[in-house]
Amino acid sequence: MSRVSESIPIAVTMGEPAGIGGEITCKAWLRRNEGLTPFFVIDDPNRLRVVSRNLGGVSQNVPVQVIGTPADTTTVFTDALPVLPEFLAVESVPGRPMPANTGAVISSIKRAVALVRNGQSAAVVTNPICKNVLYKNDFPYPGHTEFLAALAGPHVRPAMMLACPGLRVVPVTVHVSLRQAVSILNTADILTCGRMTARALQADFRIDKPRLAVAALNPHAGEEGGIGLEEENVIRPAVRALLKEGISTFGPLPSDTLFHLKARAHYDAVLCMYHDQAMIPLKMIGFHHGVNITLGLPFVRTAPDHGTAFDIAGTGMANESSLIQALRTAREISTYRLMSHS
Amino acid sequence: MSRVSESIPIAVTMGEPAGIGGEITCKAWLRRNEGLTPFFVIDDPNRLRVVSRNLGGVSQNVPVQVIGTPADTTTVFTDALPVLPEFLAVESVPGRPMPANTGAVISSIKRAVALVRNGQSAAVVTNPICKNVLYKNDFPYPGHTEFLAALAGPHVRPAMMLACPGLRVVPVTVHVSLRQAVSILNTADILTCGRMTARALQADFRIDKPRLAVAALNPHAGEEGGIGLEEENVIRPAVRALLKEGISTFGPLPSDTLFHLKARAHYDAVLCMYHDQAMIPLKMIGFHHGVNITLGLPFVRTAPDHGTAFDIAGTGMANESSLIQALRTAREISTYRLMSHS
Repeated sequence: MSRVSESIPIAVTMGEPAGIGGEITCKAWLRRNEGLTPFFVIDDPNRLRVVSRNLGGVSQNVPVQVIGTPADTTTVFTDALPVLPEFLAVESVPGRPMPANTGAVISSIKRAVALVRNGQSAAVVTNPICKNVLYKNDFPYPGHTEFLAALAGPHVRPAMMLACPGLRVVPVTVHVSLRQAVSILNTADILTCGRMTARALQADFRIDKPRLAVAALNPHAGEEGGIGLEEENVIRPAVRALLKEGISTFGPLPSDTLFHLKARAHYDAVLCMYHDQAMIPLKMIGFHHGVNITLGLPFVRTAPDHGTAFDIAGTGMANESSLIQALRTAREISTYRLMSHS
Repeated sequence: MSRVSESIPIAVTMGEPAGIGGEITCKAWLRRNEGLTPFFVIDDPNRLRVVSRNLGGVSQNVPVQVIGTPADTTTVFTDALPVLPEFLAVESVPGRPMPANTGAVISSIKRAVALVRNGQSAAVVTNPICKNVLYKNDFPYPGHTEFLAALAGPHVRPAMMLACPGLRVVPVTVHVSLRQAVSILNTADILTCGRMTARALQADFRIDKPRLAVAALNPHAGEEGGIGLEEENVIRPAVRALLKEGISTFGPLPSDTLFHLKARAHYDAVLCMYHDQAMIPLKMIGFHHGVNITLGLPFVRTAPDHGTAFDIAGTGMANESSLIQALRTAREISTYRLMSHS
């Protein structure tokens, strides 16, 4: 079964061409002999040829080869980076995103999704995009994840899991201000995230009886209502409902004592109430090895957990570890899913 | 100079007698030969004799000796735990705080402050109290720190620094709900905390040119106003004002990429906008070695960074490392202050 899955390549998107996506994709390909799964990238082969000439200290050559269909990946991958062409409107300059290229950025994502949905690729791994640039071109989604959910269908509600060796976190509120996170937090969303997380741990990570920890919103978990009522009024009802559904759930627990090594032994994932509560520990434990996994999609999607890094784009300094981790995780999950459906 | 300072003992308070304060004090004394500074505790000698009989796996004896004045500490400390008596109203039971004993808890703190102010002790190290119990007895302070500030004088504005090997953090808002933290955060408080932190780093930690990092409130530092305006409207004006005063200050910086090992090399302390933003990284890095240091007091006060731990009180399991770190830090700071005044 695993062999069948391995023969289907993973689709990697272009991401923002002024960012580090091209560099880390080339660098990841150079490490293909470290047991890396075959992948192709939907990108402009001309730009990748330019990018591949400046990979910092890396002196190896990255041959870029245009492919006609994803299936060509298998034969090409050993000798060259397989590229399904998606041409840019104007030449990209590192660190300077051009609105003229947003069409190609978006098309790369759409094509990757179409290919994974029709079985030509095993998963989608996305390079970082620059939302501010896309917003200016009528991109109506708060982020990558929501766009992918929209492509997946009208009723798809995604959630974002961040994982690194040693920790998995799922923020219930994501790309909103902290003020808004506090005000929109609600029992139904925590419950939905909890269910999706438990299901993903079972289906995608093969954990039979997943244990969820639920972080509190307030310091010291609100000190029994002394400093905040959300623990009792919003979070605890969701914990109770999850327990009722047979999901092993603990909390709400003070977030400051939830992430040190010993505490992490007691759960498989943490439901976090806001972005930084999830991301501070994740980036501390796995700065270069974090992976973003979208839960709730009808296909497998992962991504490195960093941004476009315009400040270092074009220098060749970018670290490919998170993309590699995203590729490995995507392969694992798609293999597990195939196995459980077989 | 350092010898003169060493001869003045440190005052340790009782803390909540149903908590782990007695146990960790006895255990710290057992480690007195690890270069630990002489200290005495203001506590009930009878209760300490009971506590000292159950220190978990520790088989050594802890002789308790009543002293008449702090000066007796020097001669007693080698052979026994010096205790300045503060008798409880009723016998304490681990894990079950009694309102009848709050008078002794508060008196122990008041006496420690009086002794440090008249020069009989070099610093105050406080054991954890249980605020909920004190509140029921008309204790009008949100916490230990504010009570100590009130004892210090009418215009004392304290700030809380948490430190462990590798990280120092100062939360600008502290024991309030996250909702309230967002709404009360203001430029003046960030500025005040920044000044106090810079001053403390110079005077108490001997860092000539301290570098302050300022954490953002919102995810990704608000994405240039896209998800939150506090970075531009509230935090940046404080950063500018600190820079104008000659204090090397960076920020506001996204809090998720601020605390990994490499990032920490660039600053001496972080101003955090809310409790858990400061405490998540601190507890991850120094779970058993965090120290709470009150800035802005006319005397030196430190404390372990944990609570009363009623769940393990009386079992002898409590870890004394944070109290030991608090004692060491208190001694260092009081020595530095004496040196700079000499």
